[in-house]
Amino acid sequence: MDLKAVQDYYPDDLSYCYGCGRLNEQGHHIKSYWDGDETIAHFIPESYHIAVPGFVYGGLIASIIDCHGTGSAALASYKNENREPGTLPPFRFVTASLQVDYLRPTPLGVELELRGKIVEIKGRKVITEITISAGEEICARGKVVAVQMPEEFNKK
Amino acid sequence: MDLKAVQDYYPDDLSYCYGCGRLNEQGHHIKSYWDGDETIAHFIPESYHIAVPGFVYGGLIASIIDCHGTGSAALASYKNENREPGTLPPFRFVTASLQVDYLRPTPLGVELELRGKIVEIKGRKVITEITISAGEEICARGKVVAVQMPEEFNKK
Repeated sequence: MDLKAVQDYYPDDLSYCYGCGRLNEQGHHIKSYWDGDETIAHFIPESYHIAVPGFVYGGLIASIIDCHGTGSAALASYKNENREPGTLPPFRFVTASLQVDYLRPTPLGVELELRGKIVEIKGRKVITEITISAGEEICARGKVVAVQMPEEFNKK
Repeated sequence: MDLKAVQDYYPDDLSYCYGCGRLNEQGHHIKSYWDGDETIAHFIPESYHIAVPGFVYGGLIASIIDCHGTGSAALASYKNENREPGTLPPFRFVTASLQVDYLRPTPLGVELELRGKIVEIKGRKVITEITISAGEEICARGKVVAVQMPEEFNKK
């Protein structure tokens, strides 16, 4: 497994995402890696990331699915071009749409595992399916349609 | 317009949600009201809630759609029983599924308006459609399938 996550290769000016930017001091710092043909990330919610006491807030679950989805899209795009993350030009995706199904309450206080499958790569679009597990149980399932970042994002 | 939001009527032990719980000190404190036949909420993202500099993080957008969706579901359920929020028994919903379409980048630094339409009330399930606008432009559109909180949430 690459010791660096794909987010560690994002250009500095695109590394402030609250979910996964290494330069956002308040953020979640989601880090996505390959694990065989799947992508993987881990996250431990904070004690205040609660829906009701004992269970993880659904908005946080959506957030980390979102960021692991765009990270997985970048990983898949490098692989699709037989390139390593860190080679130029960089891939950086944003989310066009996000679907999350909450299958069961997600317990707080344990490390969550996110696993991603690459469903489709077509032009500038990559579709991934992401699961979130606590221990052996899948608690939520997401689908992320990610598109390569449009130029207008860089004009601000 | 009721001066108290529906979240202000949630029972104390169900008021710790990171997105909308009045008792979660670190949370977003989303507050949902009726505005005619629609529901409404407002939110100003923090400076660090960014995707890339200048634009709001998609995970935050999903989060506030989620909470305004469950809040709108509670409002709709009281109305459906010709009851005022605060009367017993209380309505408290969780999210079964969440769909968000990101229509355009959401600018940071302005107040966002969330508007909800009640699409369906059926048994314990309420479906709402939520938009997020910055000024005159709708930036994201969501659909929230909310269900009344199952008993198991109260056993923790």
